[in-house]
Parts: sequence; C-alpha cells; structure tokens
Amino acid sequence: MTAAPTSADIRWMRRALVLAARGEYSTDPNPRVGCVLVRDGEMVGEGWHERPGEAHAEIHAIQAARGAARGATAYVSLEPCAHQGRTGPCCVALAEAGVARVVAAVADPNPQVAGRGMAYLAERGIDTLTGVLATEAEALNRGFFHRMRHGRPWVTVKLAASLDGRTAMASGESRWISGEAARDDVHRRRARSSAVMSGIGTVLADDPRLNPRLPGLERQPLRVVLDSELRTPPDAALFSTAGPVLIMAAGQAAPERRQALTAAGATVRDFPGRRPALSAVLASLAKQDEANEVMVEAGAGLAGGLLEAGLVDEICLYLAPHLMGADGRGLFELPGLEAMQDRVRLEIRDLRQVGEDLRLLLRPRNGDD
Amino acid sequence: MTAAPTSADIRWMRRALVLAARGEYSTDPNPRVGCVLVRDGEMVGEGWHERPGEAHAEIHAIQAARGAARGATAYVSLEPCAHQGRTGPCCVALAEAGVARVVAAVADPNPQVAGRGMAYLAERGIDTLTGVLATEAEALNRGFFHRMRHGRPWVTVKLAASLDGRTAMASGESRWISGEAARDDVHRRRARSSAVMSGIGTVLADDPRLNPRLPGLERQPLRVVLDSELRTPPDAALFSTAGPVLIMAAGQAAPERRQALTAAGATVRDFPGRRPALSAVLASLAKQDEANEVMVEAGAGLAGGLLEAGLVDEICLYLAPHLMGADGRGLFELPGLEAMQDRVRLEIRDLRQVGEDLRLLLRPRNGDD
Repeated sequence: MTAAPTSADIRWMRRALVLAARGEYSTDPNPRVGCVLVRDGEMVGEGWHERPGEAHAEIHAIQAARGAARGATAYVSLEPCAHQGRTGPCCVALAEAGVARVVAAVADPNPQVAGRGMAYLAERGIDTLTGVLATEAEALNRGFFHRMRHGRPWVTVKLAASLDGRTAMASGESRWISGEAARDDVHRRRARSSAVMSGIGTVLADDPRLNPRLPGLERQPLRVVLDSELRTPPDAALFSTAGPVLIMAAGQAAPERRQALTAAGATVRDFPGRRPALSAVLASLAKQDEANEVMVEAGAGLAGGLLEAGLVDEICLYLAPHLMGADGRGLFELPGLEAMQDRVRLEIRDLRQVGEDLRLLLRPRNGDD
Repeated sequence: MTAAPTSADIRWMRRALVLAARGEYSTDPNPRVGCVLVRDGEMVGEGWHERPGEAHAEIHAIQAARGAARGATAYVSLEPCAHQGRTGPCCVALAEAGVARVVAAVADPNPQVAGRGMAYLAERGIDTLTGVLATEAEALNRGFFHRMRHGRPWVTVKLAASLDGRTAMASGESRWISGEAARDDVHRRRARSSAVMSGIGTVLADDPRLNPRLPGLERQPLRVVLDSELRTPPDAALFSTAGPVLIMAAGQAAPERRQALTAAGATVRDFPGRRPALSAVLASLAKQDEANEVMVEAGAGLAGGLLEAGLVDEICLYLAPHLMGADGRGLFELPGLEAMQDRVRLEIRDLRQVGEDLRLLLRPRNGDD
C-alpha cells in the first residue's frame, strides 16, 4: 500500500472517470469503467469498457499503450477484476503488461471478491492504492454497487407533475405535463437504466412505449409491467418497439392471455400470491435480469407502494410551471400516512431548470435524520 | 429634457433606490421613495420617506444638505409630488432649494398627476430627466403603482405545500408545512403588505393571527377576512394582537354577531349579494383602505377563486421537502379547469432555497404567452 493519493493521482483518476462515463448507455449489466496508463507524467494509453462481452477498460488501455504500459501507473475507476468472466481477469493482464503501480478508485462492491484483484497485484510486487475519488466512482455505477451490496437494483421513481402536484387531470388526461426538454431528459434516463418499470394501470390508461427514444442507441432497457392478472393488451404499444418486455404476474393466471402475450413477444414471470410483492419483483430483477438501475414510471399507486415499502432510492420529479387544480391526480398514494409527523421527509440532492420545467432529484430520509 | 442618462446618473439613482427601500415596512399607504442630492460628483444630502404624514424623501435630503442643494442634481426614485398632500409639494421645495437638475426614476403612476411635478420644475428652467432605473423603481412600489393604475391592490397569494402539492393532511392538520426560515420570510412579507387577507374557512380551521411577528415593527397591516355570514368568533386569535381587523360581510347579515365582532375590535363592511364579489372586495381595499399590496393566506377555495377571476398578480409558493400523500388538501380549487389545455400557465420569476424549503415566486401568464 502506498500513502495518500497525490494531486496527480486525483487528476488522472478524474480522467479515468470521464472515460468510464462514456459507457453510460452501453455497458449494462456491467459497470462503467475507465482506465488510464501514465508513465513519467504522460498518458501512454487509455480505454473504457464499451459493452458487455467485450474487453474491459484495462485491456483497451494496455492495447492502446502498445508496450508502453511497462513501468506505468494504471488508474482504474473500479478495482480490476480477478475472476474469469466473459473476458480474462484484468489483474492478470495488468501484471503481464508490467505496470509498476495500480490505483483503483474503489474496491469491487461484491463482498465475495472485493480486494482480490488488488491483492493479486500486490502479491506480484506491484504498488497498489485503493480509494481515490471513490464517491464519484460509486455514483457512476450506483445501480451496480446497489445490486452487489443489497441484492436489488437502485430504484428511481420518475414523476412529472404540475406545480400543484398533479400528474393528470381528473379525466386521466396527462399529455404532456412537462415540456420537450424534460421529456428528452427522461429518454436519457431510460437509456441509462437497466429496466423501466410500470404498472398495469398506467399501461391501460396511457398505452406508453416506455422505451428511450434517442438516436444511435445500441441497447434497449428491459420494460417491466406489474400485471398480476395479465391484463396487458397483446397489441399494446409496448410491443411495437424494439426491446424486451417482462410481465410480472401472479399465481399462474389466465393461460390463454399468457399465451397471447408470449406470442406478442413478452416474457411472463410468475410470483406467488394475488399480486407480486414489490420486494420480490425487485429481487428477481437483480438476480435474474442483472438489473442495476430501475426507473419506475407509474401512477400514484405503485409509486406510493414502493415508497411505503422503503424501496425507493431516488425520486426524479419534474415540476411544470402550471396549475392543474385540486381535482387532478396526485403523486403518491400513501394510505398509511395520516398525521403531519408521519409525512415522508426528503432530501433535495439536485434542483435545476430543464427547459421550462424544474427537475428535482430527491432521496427519502431515514427516520432519524 | 436632457439626453440619455449618464453612468453617474444610474449610479446615484441606484443609491436613491437603496434609500427608498429603507421604508419597506413603514411608508404604506405611501410609496417608498429615496432622494440623493449630488453636486460636483459628491453627495451633499440624502433622505428617504419614513412614514405617512411625515416629510417626503426630497425634504429630508434638502434638509440634510444644509444649503448645499443649490446647483445640485436631485435623484428621486419617484417623480416629485406636485400636489398639496399631508406635506407641501416636493417640486416646489426642490425649486426653492435651487437645484439645477432633477432626475426621476419614473413618473407618478397616477394618470391624473403624472408629469406635473417634472413639468413644474422644467417651467422654472430646471433641467429634468425621467426614466432612470424605472423598472427597479416600479418593482419597489409595485402595489402603489398597481393601485394607481388599476384601482385594485397588487395581490400575492402565499401558499405553503409539500412537494406533492398538499397544504394540509386530510384531517386538516397543517402545522407546520414549512420550516422556520420560510415562516420568518412570511412574516417579512406580511410586514411589507398593506393587508393580509384570509377566508372564514381558514379562520375557523386554523385560528391564525395573520400578523407579522417581527421585532420593532411600527405599522401593522390590516387583517381582512372574507366572512359573508359573520362566522368569525369574537374570541378569535385575530383579536388578540395589535392591528386592525376588517371583516367583509354580505347583505347586512346577523346583527347580533355584527355587534359582538365590532365589540371585539373588528370593522365590518357590507357587500351586496350572498357573498362579497372578490373584485369588489379588492376595489374597496384599494379605495377605502388605500391598500397597495395584499397578501392572501387562505385555503384552496379562496386561492382558486382569485386565480379563476384573474385577480392574482403573484403566487409565493413555499415547497417543503416532504411528501404528504394524495389524500391531503390541494393548493387551488379550480372547478372550471377540466382539460390539459385549460391549465393555468405560470412564469417562474424567482426560485430560491429558504432554509430547507424552496420558495417560488410565480406569475400567471396571459393566455397568449
């Protein structure tokens, strides 16, 4: 272990993070990772993980360095892997390339393998340092870290409302609450998500596609519908666009509807009981679908249910500069909330103007905050 | 008339505006006005209007200059008055003091007298210029300008809500939605208002005092309650604090309750019909009470009624970082609003954090915006 990071270490790690972010829309379910090789104060090679099944960031950087990796310091935004996955272990590749020092932003979040990559390198006499811009590195892959640590994805509930907190008129009319810039922002957020989840109520009322509509996207997130009784119409707009659709059903319901939905292209997954438990749905998305980040775009019922179950990690709230009146539909159904002291406390993490709308990123606070 | 203002003109006028703002809590129903006398690039005297019945800004500045006003330029944030009010006309005093030039930020808003003060000075060979920092000068006295131009006060609807747009729990419990810093901000806004208006529903539900609770205030705003049937309890908290209370009643209702309220210290004013028309209430506040700025602190019914009648000039919305759930009470009852295309469009004029809360200053947009 070397001592504290130098200012050069921080500067180069920042570069590695910039590279890692290039994989924002494409690495899922893998983490976004960047790597910079530096010798005598000069960058001799850099790379980032581009898509699953392809080379990791370290391999790209070593190849770019064309032999100049020998004696260099490798800056990696995540501890090099030590396991044989779809590609060879990166710690072996770095050792073989002859690097003298490896600086990792943060250790692997999987408790089973955390530290193994760095230990492998240290055992071979390579200088190692872990923990440079760790917070930034975790933020870049918060879904991956969350899944590894908690066995469920990072859940962001996205909502768009008028300034008086209404997501639709009493009639259900809701297009469009927010402006074009906000809707573009939503498409980028969908694109970086592993999955976009909604409820059958929203599917029946709005017939949404839930896909990211951005040019040049390689990867489409999984669309997930909570639909206990398989009421999703086989001709729903969900099936008119590329990308998988997963329906979370309850108790082997409705064989003929199941067949029609499967024919339409959906995968149906069954849960016990009359409706899937929200925690079981999220656990299954983490385990079976390797979902890191899930964006929920649903009505007040599902949004409120997730919130009351403590399963919301972040709320992305677009507020449009309009009033829709007290008869419109609300943001969160919270039937358990009756007194002021019970209200859900939020922390405002970010507030900005997006076009004409405001965007707030909020996190639920723990009771003791 | 001189040519365009110089940078020195703008700089000194800014000073006059700073002085004017010192009267924020005390000049009502008069406008806030500041005056600076400048000779050879040096300030030789300055002053501001402090309270009604006392000297105007120009008189204070002339007195402070002790004879040095002769040959000076007078910067005044509002055209000097030409009428004999509670004090003598300021244009006469300036001419007699021997000023060489008078620069006014903006003309008197009263169409009957606008321009007369400056014309009086020009006729006496004094150089005059009107229109330096006019926007800023109007903003400082927007209520006064509004009353003079439209015959009704500037109306700000103040509301405090959770981020999901709820002003109270379903039970009516509402203390406190916003934090201490926001409540302090409300006290300052009440203090600068001519009147604070509420509805009988809020008085019965919350028993508010509606007074500004700030140390050292000389002037208390008029508290106004819309109470058609005189249901305000004579032992309401409104009567426990200093400052006048005006009850807007309908059609000579309930003589015995009227007597009890008068005994408690209220003034009762009658309007025709079953309930006072909102436009008539505001017109009477402008005409009979010389009310420039009215802050409305009421429930969704009165707030919505004012908005639908086009009588809201500004909304001051405090949003607390909490969720209260879809069963709570809303901000504006807008029964006439049924389709998305009818929703009320707002312009965000200011957005800032006040303690833990957000404060938005909003203005309704015209239909053609």
